Amino acid sequence: MKEFDTIVAIATALGEGGISIIRVSGKDSVNIVNKIFRAKSGRTLLNIKPYTMQYGNIVELTTRENIDDVIVSFMKGPKSFTAEDTIEINCHGGIFSTNRVLEEVLKAGARIAEPGEFTKRAFLNGRIDLSQAEAVMDIITSKTDMSMKAAVKQSEGSLSMCINDLRKKLLELIAHIEATVDYPEDDLEELTSEDTIIQLKAVLYKIESLINSADEGKIIREGLNTAIVGKPNVGKSSLLNALLEEKRAIVTDIEGTTRDLIEEYINISGIPVKIIDTAGIRKTKDIVEKIGVENSIKKIDEADLIIFILDSSREIDNKDLDIIRHIKDKKYIVILNKTDLPRKIQNTDLKILSSKYVIEMSAKNGFGIDILKDKIKELFFNENIKASNLIITNIRHKAALISAKSNCLEAINALKNTSAIDLASIDIRNAWYNLGQITGDTMEEDLIEKIFKNFCLGK
Amino acid sequence: MKEFDTIVAIATALGEGGISIIRVSGKDSVNIVNKIFRAKSGRTLLNIKPYTMQYGNIVELTTRENIDDVIVSFMKGPKSFTAEDTIEINCHGGIFSTNRVLEEVLKAGARIAEPGEFTKRAFLNGRIDLSQAEAVMDIITSKTDMSMKAAVKQSEGSLSMCINDLRKKLLELIAHIEATVDYPEDDLEELTSEDTIIQLKAVLYKIESLINSADEGKIIREGLNTAIVGKPNVGKSSLLNALLEEKRAIVTDIEGTTRDLIEEYINISGIPVKIIDTAGIRKTKDIVEKIGVENSIKKIDEADLIIFILDSSREIDNKDLDIIRHIKDKKYIVILNKTDLPRKIQNTDLKILSSKYVIEMSAKNGFGIDILKDKIKELFFNENIKASNLIITNIRHKAALISAKSNCLEAINALKNTSAIDLASIDIRNAWYNLGQITGDTMEEDLIEKIFKNFCLGK
Repeated sequence: MKEFDTIVAIATALGEGGISIIRVSGKDSVNIVNKIFRAKSGRTLLNIKPYTMQYGNIVELTTRENIDDVIVSFMKGPKSFTAEDTIEINCHGGIFSTNRVLEEVLKAGARIAEPGEFTKRAFLNGRIDLSQAEAVMDIITSKTDMSMKAAVKQSEGSLSMCINDLRKKLLELIAHIEATVDYPEDDLEELTSEDTIIQLKAVLYKIESLINSADEGKIIREGLNTAIVGKPNVGKSSLLNALLEEKRAIVTDIEGTTRDLIEEYINISGIPVKIIDTAGIRKTKDIVEKIGVENSIKKIDEADLIIFILDSSREIDNKDLDIIRHIKDKKYIVILNKTDLPRKIQNTDLKILSSKYVIEMSAKNGFGIDILKDKIKELFFNENIKASNLIITNIRHKAALISAKSNCLEAINALKNTSAIDLASIDIRNAWYNLGQITGDTMEEDLIEKIFKNFCLGK
Repeated sequence: MKEFDTIVAIATALGEGGISIIRVSGKDSVNIVNKIFRAKSGRTLLNIKPYTMQYGNIVELTTRENIDDVIVSFMKGPKSFTAEDTIEINCHGGIFSTNRVLEEVLKAGARIAEPGEFTKRAFLNGRIDLSQAEAVMDIITSKTDMSMKAAVKQSEGSLSMCINDLRKKLLELIAHIEATVDYPEDDLEELTSEDTIIQLKAVLYKIESLINSADEGKIIREGLNTAIVGKPNVGKSSLLNALLEEKRAIVTDIEGTTRDLIEEYINISGIPVKIIDTAGIRKTKDIVEKIGVENSIKKIDEADLIIFILDSSREIDNKDLDIIRHIKDKKYIVILNKTDLPRKIQNTDLKILSSKYVIEMSAKNGFGIDILKDKIKELFFNENIKASNLIITNIRHKAALISAKSNCLEAINALKNTSAIDLASIDIRNAWYNLGQITGDTMEEDLIEKIFKNFCLGK
């Protein structure tokens, strides 16, 4: 294991909370913190046992003045997140107080960590591979039980195991081909070729099934981008409220959470559904209103799914038709709301709608909500989807799999021409290389840098 | 010590961070967490030693499915923040993941904690008094080194010691007076009276000096409400930037911090200065602009200090005069900015300004900034202010001190009439009672409730 310098960062989210954690990792962690720590017991930190804590104060390096009451804990490498000696300082939460303690650790000799640098060390020290490192961030940003379980599974190495298995098989095939090429006198090309194609197709099948899981995986991880549209007073807010009342909807009323971070996500059967509320869409000459309408249209274009609400107690009018014009090329579900009132919309009116999903609803009574949820699942998920399957949730992994797939297809083509089976080994090696990008085994330095740069601070 | 039920809450600020802490406190902490914890070592949590940690997983109570990788630490009461058995679960940061672990602890039998309930337990269990409990929140919300030091000092019991000392003296005086009254045959009234007045005046002097520190204390704690005003292009932003470049200005570019939480505070010589940027003030008929101007006027009314900027390279015009009209009754400092340009404003022009503080400045070159900082200190602080003095930062404490002061004055009046010295003992008892409100010794239950309700969640 290489020895890196000692880094420090605030590991908890910043804001006013009860406790914050300052994480220090590297060979000098204990020495550095010891310089600014005064244990209540009077003992030095230098003899602290792994996986124990000490209560005391962080003091100013020079004046020895008390800065904060803290609890210091020690995880000895390699049994720590980074696989290095790690000290965690639990101090009072709060923006200034936490930064004040951080500042003193910096003065004592640590360097401020870059975003993702702790996880990067865990990777560089060989404790986890790249897909596991990426899963750590996915756990943190997960929005539903299903996305969290998929991320936890990946962090435990389920994807790595599968990829390593495929790469091992590819290496065996390469060895087999090269042996054949090296001893052409044995005249084994044909046999080798047929056999290799069969085995390569098995690998290809597994790669394809992973790629197929990626669309669902993306939705599990990032949410289903859903726009609720409809002219004013058709019941957009009632629908939103009805959906939000779901037991497992992500709580939005927690003090201190940034609204735009979570408020748009609701949880429908384990799927994070990102709800975008849109202003009404209609022709307007008013400039300010025009901007609002243009934003709505943009949101519709970006959406994976449109929920279009009609008021069934009013006839379809030009405003509804305007909206239909804008959404006609998207996947959409039509809600006939307010079925508790006398119905004015006729079934024949619905012919202009190209959606096969028309749901009768009384949002204010909760009638029809379950059907809507089932339809959303039906539109976007295979029947058997669950987090216990291996699902590709990361677009980078998907891209690597697609490359590997085309390498395998090229290899199969090359193998069909038995006089060129040595060319196939190059394609297979490329597939092996591309799959290695998922685990980071064959990753270039600058790409690794780029991946960790997107991590949050302190992780 | 009473035994309370077991409570749980997220103790770190919510947001996307590397780590979150879930704190569990109460007699069943270990039992409850043990139900949903699976140690990597296979050991049970029931034998965990105080001040040690275990690495493992939080699992679903019923299905035993893995929820998250965690480190669990144990602080045995009374050596914990609450003075109760406390378990802290360090799990992955992130809003959903943290709430998911919290949910499982709730299922396992803990109750969700109310805001401030952990600190309240520390108070009810006698580990800290009320002024120390309040200081904990002050540490968390502190905005400068000075406010943090004042809060840390108070959390260590510096104020409590002073108050307890005063209360002890008052009790002695009461005993002395009552002894005199009980044995009137000794004819000691006059002697007692004179002696008591002298001692009471000493107490009064200390109370008054605490009250006098409260204005500064309020500013140290809550910041100096400062509005920068001036017509467009006089250099408001340059001044703000010059001030923000101060080395110890609170960092505002930390990812995830809510802008409105800290961005308005800058740190001038340890004083948190809350800067309010105001729109120009002028007469207008435009309704939208009018609202902006009204807001500016409101902010000026609320400000402790106005920094009024004039462009010294332009003559004073009606727009400047408009502003002067609005600020003339406030404490204000005049900045003559842009002294690097040829001067148009004459000294005689400045006669209309009622401020004795006129500072020449070139904000873009940083010239004059230090003088401004000195003037701010001069206007609001006694020369010897430092956090090492005992400073009243809490308005509730100030109110209690003011009541105690008037009780003492009444007692002194009563004592002057030697035939009524028994009445003085009632006043002294009231002073003793009122001072006890600071430490919580004589506090009513519902007031205590009210104080802790204002704490943040998880503290």
